[in-house]
Amino acid sequence: MIRLFVPDDLSSGAEIVLGREASHYIANVMRQIVGGAIAVFNGRDGEWKALITETGKRAVRLRASERLRVQDSPPDLELLVAVVKRPRLETIIEKATELGARRVRLVMTQHTNAERVRIERLTVIATEAAEQTGRLDIPEIEEPAKLRMLLDQWDQNRRLLFCDEGGDAKPVLDALAGATGPWAILIGPEGGFSPEERKRLRTSAFVVPATLGPRILRADTAAISALTLWQAAAGDWRK
Amino acid sequence: MIRLFVPDDLSSGAEIVLGREASHYIANVMRQIVGGAIAVFNGRDGEWKALITETGKRAVRLRASERLRVQDSPPDLELLVAVVKRPRLETIIEKATELGARRVRLVMTQHTNAERVRIERLTVIATEAAEQTGRLDIPEIEEPAKLRMLLDQWDQNRRLLFCDEGGDAKPVLDALAGATGPWAILIGPEGGFSPEERKRLRTSAFVVPATLGPRILRADTAAISALTLWQAAAGDWRK
Repeated sequence: MIRLFVPDDLSSGAEIVLGREASHYIANVMRQIVGGAIAVFNGRDGEWKALITETGKRAVRLRASERLRVQDSPPDLELLVAVVKRPRLETIIEKATELGARRVRLVMTQHTNAERVRIERLTVIATEAAEQTGRLDIPEIEEPAKLRMLLDQWDQNRRLLFCDEGGDAKPVLDALAGATGPWAILIGPEGGFSPEERKRLRTSAFVVPATLGPRILRADTAAISALTLWQAAAGDWRK
Repeated sequence: MIRLFVPDDLSSGAEIVLGREASHYIANVMRQIVGGAIAVFNGRDGEWKALITETGKRAVRLRASERLRVQDSPPDLELLVAVVKRPRLETIIEKATELGARRVRLVMTQHTNAERVRIERLTVIATEAAEQTGRLDIPEIEEPAKLRMLLDQWDQNRRLLFCDEGGDAKPVLDALAGATGPWAILIGPEGGFSPEERKRLRTSAFVVPATLGPRILRADTAAISALTLWQAAAGDWRK
């Protein structure tokens, strides 16, 4: 069944009026007709089966008929990722959504090149990925913030997995053994962290350093690998 | 140091004449001059430091001076991946190289759409990824073959991790516990495997079914996640 994120409140009998792009997608791209069923979710009220009641020129209208899933959200995992060039950043957003990150915080580090970031565009990518992957929520994407400020304001109860290219860090699976509670993963820029940043990270009590193997990984690969290992070792990929 | 794959034999004092594209890259893009050092590897003789002896109009010449690393190759892991659309297939090749797959076999399944595959282009992507990631070899990429034929000719000593969306498969980390010896990972097309293919896979003694969590993953995400988990649980990411 086609899945669509909608902003509308969802309850039995609720009417949903799709926006222009979604209407075009349903009526013209997917060629759905009156009486057809699609699945809708809004991040609050679970997933609903909705029947198409009108496919007019202006808008497609739906009526919610039956709740298919109750609202839930993935485990409390955040991804902190240095701003990298747009194609790789977009890949990271798509994959973080599929891999169940609850929130993505974009980070400016000392070696981050200034790149223009369009949060709106990244949110569209996250929304489409959520529709495709079967999530009931869209990960929040936060405007870029300085790493130093994020660390200054850090919630000490949240552990931060620091994927450290150098040094004596443990393999990720060892570092994550027995992990519980809220976590975040930090992925640096392709130029790595500055000595000052590494020192700050390595001396913070909430930071768990870990290594992602013997080869050099691009930022998108490192993000996907770390999210995968966290979900498999501590998240909802365990049974 | 810049890393370059070269076809030439490498030994102390060996002269290397770069091809046109590599010469342009070294002399014009990276603006290297006579006396500069780069690292070269050929997949056979390890990694060598080579000094630039000439940056003529036609070609850059180097002389190998010192062996930096002895030849090795990543663990015996193959990726079998259904042919998917070009951008995602290219991502898979790049990531399989970074994540240390020794060989990539392209697979035609019953739900695979016919896509034109240019092995030569994929090998260029693998070569660039190997240069960047620090590998000493380039993964072999095999022409598309039918899944049925690959299974008919399967080496029974090689375990095949079958990432199965449906059914009662174990989480990957459980399925890989204690894994040793040669392995392969099978990633299906976005339409999934046919019932006939699933039955064949689930009844083959060398097949290890496993699930990649509760969300639906795109083919490139599934490939990256499975390669990561194998390296972390059974490969060279353990320490």
